[in-house]
Amino acid sequence: MNLNRLPCLVFLGCAFFIISAVDSAASSANDELRSDKTMMKYAIVIHGGAGRSPADFDAKTNEQRRAALETALAKGVDILKAGGSSLDAVEAVIRILEDDPQFNAGKGAVFNAEGSHELDASIMDGKSLNCGAVAGISIVKNPISCARKVMTETRHVLLAGPGAESFARQQQLELVEPTYFDTPEERASWEEYKSQKSKSGAMQFDFQFTPRWSIGTVGCVALDGQGNLAAGTSTGGMTDKKFGRIGDSPIVGAGTYADNQTCAVSGTGIGEQYIRNAVAYDVSAQMKYRNATLEQAVNDNLENRLDKGDGGLIAVDKDGNMAFGFNTTGMAVAIADSAGKFEVIWGDQ
Amino acid sequence: MNLNRLPCLVFLGCAFFIISAVDSAASSANDELRSDKTMMKYAIVIHGGAGRSPADFDAKTNEQRRAALETALAKGVDILKAGGSSLDAVEAVIRILEDDPQFNAGKGAVFNAEGSHELDASIMDGKSLNCGAVAGISIVKNPISCARKVMTETRHVLLAGPGAESFARQQQLELVEPTYFDTPEERASWEEYKSQKSKSGAMQFDFQFTPRWSIGTVGCVALDGQGNLAAGTSTGGMTDKKFGRIGDSPIVGAGTYADNQTCAVSGTGIGEQYIRNAVAYDVSAQMKYRNATLEQAVNDNLENRLDKGDGGLIAVDKDGNMAFGFNTTGMAVAIADSAGKFEVIWGDQ
Repeated sequence: MNLNRLPCLVFLGCAFFIISAVDSAASSANDELRSDKTMMKYAIVIHGGAGRSPADFDAKTNEQRRAALETALAKGVDILKAGGSSLDAVEAVIRILEDDPQFNAGKGAVFNAEGSHELDASIMDGKSLNCGAVAGISIVKNPISCARKVMTETRHVLLAGPGAESFARQQQLELVEPTYFDTPEERASWEEYKSQKSKSGAMQFDFQFTPRWSIGTVGCVALDGQGNLAAGTSTGGMTDKKFGRIGDSPIVGAGTYADNQTCAVSGTGIGEQYIRNAVAYDVSAQMKYRNATLEQAVNDNLENRLDKGDGGLIAVDKDGNMAFGFNTTGMAVAIADSAGKFEVIWGDQ
Repeated sequence: MNLNRLPCLVFLGCAFFIISAVDSAASSANDELRSDKTMMKYAIVIHGGAGRSPADFDAKTNEQRRAALETALAKGVDILKAGGSSLDAVEAVIRILEDDPQFNAGKGAVFNAEGSHELDASIMDGKSLNCGAVAGISIVKNPISCARKVMTETRHVLLAGPGAESFARQQQLELVEPTYFDTPEERASWEEYKSQKSKSGAMQFDFQFTPRWSIGTVGCVALDGQGNLAAGTSTGGMTDKKFGRIGDSPIVGAGTYADNQTCAVSGTGIGEQYIRNAVAYDVSAQMKYRNATLEQAVNDNLENRLDKGDGGLIAVDKDGNMAFGFNTTGMAVAIADSAGKFEVIWGDQ
């Protein structure tokens, strides 16, 4: 099965992939890795947003996106291989993707209706169910690190707006001018959005949002050698958003969830649908309450609970099984585990 | 069973109550009501916050709180009896409690660290899973009505801060000065909080928040004659909150959830715990995935998933069964249904 090519092939229906951590370590060349695995079993899945397929980009852009995902995945693997925590891996991976202008998180975030950026992020520790999130912040270089500080330095879960920025300042996180997040590509995308909306004669809430206008939310889920799960998500939200709109990325239970009893999940797509259906927590709940496998739980959400075109999910369970899927035309994904798998699933054309 | 007195008696462990819509219509005097019920079965539960018991208040205050709950309940019953929707009942009940200075929602909201108020609310339609929420708003008289406008007039779920206030202005909702929400009682409570924190030498996040400092979040769940469930929650959050802290009340899945397949739920207490455990959605998930009864699902959350002292829940299921419980020393609750039940469960002393 050439996973690299699959996202190009599955334009209809729901695409879904499950990778068993046990089955994937079959070759004798992996004997040494398997020996490591006994001591230090890990698994990691990252995403760079659902909503488009490699066919929507030119070859150079696809190669750049692949390379970015590979760099981020390698960083996560390095941390996990060295015995680092899943939380550290999740934060480090997402920081790389936030710093990369190709994704809708941190640098390269979409423009809001005021021509600025409002960033959202969340992170969750499956061991303690502790979690942190920020919403609507415009001057913190790495929102995921701010979310982690909310988790570790406060009794709270979600801080928003200027208050969250004051907290970031107190925590001495790196601050930037809001224009730091600007990219010519996202400015052009915003102008195109406004033009299409204007031509359609639509009012603010008539014009259909699709993942086309929010591609590139990033997320990471990981299982570390201590058996701890973690999940994180970071986004710039939807192009031309206004009125302080907050999507699912900073909402624990909707866009992010992790519980050592079950799994870690990160979502990407039409955030409102993930909130209404409590998608990230539902994957965990299906495993806990109806003994669903990770595959069944992810699949049920994408096929039956969400609408076609809503988005995608990545997940890893307590046993190191990895899964991802999407009901859009594509999703940028990369996966790795202690059995030797290391694969970027995007635009191999 | 004298439900009125129970909250005073259950200081230890988790108090839980389930009221069957079928069993409660036993007396012959209810024949006419039962006949109505066949055509127009309804059930409604409201809460005015967990965290204290009637023993913490003087007789006059308890009587005023009882009267307020009774007025709100009567309004909800009037709407449901007349064939109105559960969404209309939920909004109308919560507006009354928001306007009443005795509860921590709307007028009478707790003070934040800046000496002002940041209000949160959410509402959900169990028929469509559509929902709306607002967070961190300071000038909208009735946050629950703003949440409903988010649900009905936008494609979004959650709007926050000044953006949400711009939306409220556009929707021509009633606006007030932030000082409208001030009450002498809550200002005194804030001063006491700051004094205790100062004496303890605690920093912002060292000082333990308890429901003592957030009593009075309000909520309502209802089943209407068309079989539609709805839930809503409104709050001022936690005394002395800062950094744009948002709790569970505006988070669909945490503080509020409604699904016609299962139940409608509203929570009150330490909001962060409700987010970490996705409590409101979990009640629905337990009914859906492990065939739990409403009672079992509410009870499991209060006894096993939340910590003692975290708060309480109200819920009604698709068959009109009502349940509420709390693991604090008390909760203000009122319940009514088409079988003739009409009861305020608070401070009958």
